[in-house]
Amino acid sequence: MTGLATSDPTRPLLYLEDLEVGQRFVTITHTIDEAQIVEFARQFDPQPFHLDAVAAQETMFGGLAASGWHTAAITMRLFVNSGFNIAGGLIGVEVEVTWPRPTRAGDELHVEIEVASVTPSRSRPDRGSATVRATTCNQRGEVLQVMTAKMIVPRRVPA
Amino acid sequence: MTGLATSDPTRPLLYLEDLEVGQRFVTITHTIDEAQIVEFARQFDPQPFHLDAVAAQETMFGGLAASGWHTAAITMRLFVNSGFNIAGGLIGVEVEVTWPRPTRAGDELHVEIEVASVTPSRSRPDRGSATVRATTCNQRGEVLQVMTAKMIVPRRVPA
Repeated sequence: MTGLATSDPTRPLLYLEDLEVGQRFVTITHTIDEAQIVEFARQFDPQPFHLDAVAAQETMFGGLAASGWHTAAITMRLFVNSGFNIAGGLIGVEVEVTWPRPTRAGDELHVEIEVASVTPSRSRPDRGSATVRATTCNQRGEVLQVMTAKMIVPRRVPA
Repeated sequence: MTGLATSDPTRPLLYLEDLEVGQRFVTITHTIDEAQIVEFARQFDPQPFHLDAVAAQETMFGGLAASGWHTAAITMRLFVNSGFNIAGGLIGVEVEVTWPRPTRAGDELHVEIEVASVTPSRSRPDRGSATVRATTCNQRGEVLQVMTAKMIVPRRVPA
């Protein structure tokens, strides 16, 4: 993922009060290639359909496919650079992820993020939570991953 | 993750007929260290609490913590070596993940896998799905991650 900028400190920090349902953020893109797919799989998901383009042809994927956890990790990296710059950082407590289709070498990924809910904490006056829906697409608009994530968000002014 | 054996081809392949609710598998262990945490974070989750032990002290984590996606990726790697050797590979279609506490440098991770449901497909006689609950713990038995994953499982004998 070399070449992606890290979090931009000049972007405004977002607190719970700054979030509203329906807000959208779109990330920059990242192109995945065969070398990245194989390197990630060797470390974390060493199965034939993630490791070898020839062996993968005989599998359910019909060709080399990235590990779903690789798609999730790239999604996180794009998220960090999205302008969805939560004060205190992007801290997920629970997520749901589906992978409607495989991520392939050559796919150019971007993530579309939408705020789905904003909830002040009942017990902690200094924070709340937000749920976001993050859809990872390729350059043809095909959906590769849908993630719903509940995150901790600090308040600017304690309740 | 060097040093972990890859999938053992001498282990029996599991088909839908071989799975039953309550079956359990326990993986080998993997010890995570600071270098692994920082390397993963640089690539996929470059936030201060995952990158720098000193900067992390000022954050909600109170010290260096692994990215949740790193814990998930290690869980996948341990899963691949667990003896839960599904014919056709471990192919998830949807997952839910929670991280009850951070993964820290020095934690020795293992995963406890339990089959939660087994469902033949209504439309595809050659397959079904299984839901497993995978709990990732450290050497003190503290739960770092709970994952529920729905996976595709081929049938030995088509329905």
